[in-house]
Amino acid sequence: MANIRASIITIGDELLIGQTIDTNSAWIAKQLNTLGIDVTKRIAVGDNEKDITEALNRELTDADLIFLTGGLGPTADDITKPLLCRYFGGKLVINEQVLTHVKDIFTKRNRPFLERNMKQAEVPDNCTVLFNPMGTAPGMLFEKNGKKVISMPGVPFEMMAIMETAVLPMLKENYQSDAIEHTTIITAGEGESFVAEKIQDIESAMPPHIKLAYLPNLGMVKLRLTGKAKDAGSLKAEVDLWMQQIKERLANIVVADGDIAFEQIIGNLLQQKDKTLSLAESCTGGYISHLITQVSGASNYYKGGVVSYLIEVKENLLGVSAEDIANNGAVSETVAIQMAEGVRKQLQSDYALSITGILDKQPVPGENEEPGTIWMAVAGTDKTVARKFKVYYDRVRNKESASIMGMLFLWKFINDKL
Amino acid sequence: MANIRASIITIGDELLIGQTIDTNSAWIAKQLNTLGIDVTKRIAVGDNEKDITEALNRELTDADLIFLTGGLGPTADDITKPLLCRYFGGKLVINEQVLTHVKDIFTKRNRPFLERNMKQAEVPDNCTVLFNPMGTAPGMLFEKNGKKVISMPGVPFEMMAIMETAVLPMLKENYQSDAIEHTTIITAGEGESFVAEKIQDIESAMPPHIKLAYLPNLGMVKLRLTGKAKDAGSLKAEVDLWMQQIKERLANIVVADGDIAFEQIIGNLLQQKDKTLSLAESCTGGYISHLITQVSGASNYYKGGVVSYLIEVKENLLGVSAEDIANNGAVSETVAIQMAEGVRKQLQSDYALSITGILDKQPVPGENEEPGTIWMAVAGTDKTVARKFKVYYDRVRNKESASIMGMLFLWKFINDKL
Repeated sequence: MANIRASIITIGDELLIGQTIDTNSAWIAKQLNTLGIDVTKRIAVGDNEKDITEALNRELTDADLIFLTGGLGPTADDITKPLLCRYFGGKLVINEQVLTHVKDIFTKRNRPFLERNMKQAEVPDNCTVLFNPMGTAPGMLFEKNGKKVISMPGVPFEMMAIMETAVLPMLKENYQSDAIEHTTIITAGEGESFVAEKIQDIESAMPPHIKLAYLPNLGMVKLRLTGKAKDAGSLKAEVDLWMQQIKERLANIVVADGDIAFEQIIGNLLQQKDKTLSLAESCTGGYISHLITQVSGASNYYKGGVVSYLIEVKENLLGVSAEDIANNGAVSETVAIQMAEGVRKQLQSDYALSITGILDKQPVPGENEEPGTIWMAVAGTDKTVARKFKVYYDRVRNKESASIMGMLFLWKFINDKL
Repeated sequence: MANIRASIITIGDELLIGQTIDTNSAWIAKQLNTLGIDVTKRIAVGDNEKDITEALNRELTDADLIFLTGGLGPTADDITKPLLCRYFGGKLVINEQVLTHVKDIFTKRNRPFLERNMKQAEVPDNCTVLFNPMGTAPGMLFEKNGKKVISMPGVPFEMMAIMETAVLPMLKENYQSDAIEHTTIITAGEGESFVAEKIQDIESAMPPHIKLAYLPNLGMVKLRLTGKAKDAGSLKAEVDLWMQQIKERLANIVVADGDIAFEQIIGNLLQQKDKTLSLAESCTGGYISHLITQVSGASNYYKGGVVSYLIEVKENLLGVSAEDIANNGAVSETVAIQMAEGVRKQLQSDYALSITGILDKQPVPGENEEPGTIWMAVAGTDKTVARKFKVYYDRVRNKESASIMGMLFLWKFINDKL
């Protein structure tokens, strides 16, 4: 069967004035991709009839499956439902199952059921209702000339719930697309062009149905191979074989096999070595701790941490010498070392990472180091290693950047690559 | 002058398989919006000539300004530059300024300058080069029939740097668009439909050039008013007047004036009251601390926190009674209270928030509470208040959700609204 082409249309003025970052599209695309369904385009339009209708017209020409999110709420700016109803020539009728569900939600939350909530239970009589277990606005499936249009609310949890319970099972049953295989590795410490140069001959030798992509970001470059074929057959083995060649060539800089977050890389490493970790964060303010605990099962290796934002916390909770802070500044090698060793001792972990630095662009009174300077240390059983790093952007980006550097530093320490 | 219409085209297979969330579009849209330039559409296409060309053809018909990001790197999957060069009928030539800059970057980072990096300095001879201070790929500006096409790298920091230093100043000088005014308030504790019902008469009375939008998420509803007019004149005053009416009507549930993050709301409140905060986080793993420290100047009121991920950390660093943990579980009222009071004492802050809960869907051995249960406490000078909350989703979404709830709980405590 030929490739299925899907388009995603997200609806909402908030997407066009930059008030909301569109996370729905990426999530939907990822799910479709695992079914071998190609998303060929993503479009965001505002809450207005003309733009939504034009996008629908165009995508019904280009694509087989069209996903819409947004504009299904109970308020006046939500115009998607009546628009779709008219577009496909239906009329709105109360759906009893949805009505019961909506009333239930209001009862459970102890909120009055309003006349306008009745409207949430109205659905076009020419669509299949996609039940929304997480909210009041049902999803809708319209079909026309063998094409499917699926409309869902824009609230991410509700959209995800409808996709998981209704849409994905239906797609799995109805579509069999070309086989598609992705495989990704992550490298750290070298730039995109250096990596490309190293594997140039491998890349040139690859067949046209296998494509290599470079995804650079913050000291890391992801390499993704994508293979496509009429049927799965040996496709996975073929893609894996090419990736194997790349991995061998880049052995020194590969930090992960698979498209996984750095916190998962750290988690896997600690689990595998049966070691524990604690953190002492100043400038990153708990962000590394947050990332580490995003991983399910983190309690197997992560003991906890101290966010020593103010100097007194470094002294009182981590036992950093007040004199050393006074003499060297809080952003210094000795303070980083004492923070790491202090938290390691307090929390009795095998490893501890500390980080102290100046993320803002202004100099900090009492600090000798320039803005953008970060001191980190990792303490282990036998030794503690400290290093100085630089970050170049604004506060928020520097925090992200420093956190990735910190995890990479820890990774190298544990792997004896420092 | 008539409204300027802008389109954003983001390029990259990673956007269509869900590997990358598109944050660039929202950022660009926000910047343009402040200049009164309407983004009417956002499109994401893959790394292929046909789809990029079609998107360009279409947007050159629809829009006045077209922003492209992505596909400018030094590797084979980066096809935007030669494509644009051909599209606008130019040829690639070495740009000396860019070449010097690229060589500089490689020297500074102590990396070999490769033949393929030379290509980074090639630019179409029919474009204006937009200097990239943060990376090797320059931005490009093409003009055709009075329309402008601006191409930038997809790496967010590089795109932002080019926008800030080259593009936005140029737009400010060249365009004068219709006046546009946004104003946003944030409400918490009531659903979208309840809020809409409360202000129905105000909404109905608003003139057509002022539009009200509801943006619900996680226990909060943002209300945004957008006014448009040929010239600024009294537009701001008019929009503010309508918002004033809404604010008065919703006085009980308005938590912020302006579209600001909850961590900023907390920050403003603490600054204004000249009080300090500390945190004891278990299940949220440092996420609230991360959010609080995203705000510039957080060191004026945030002392720090303890991420007591394992039970022993609750006991050792926060002084929670081991017996109480054994008897009641770590997710319990008494532990939440002892965590808040413990961290408040240890870090000598005016307020302390604690949070302990079960984010995953599986029951935890030794805990009496069900999965999805969160206990929080706020300790102040005179009293400590604890509350039980429920979250309903998966681990990552529950962490986000619990953190927002935590900040709202703290906000209510400080404002005596509990």
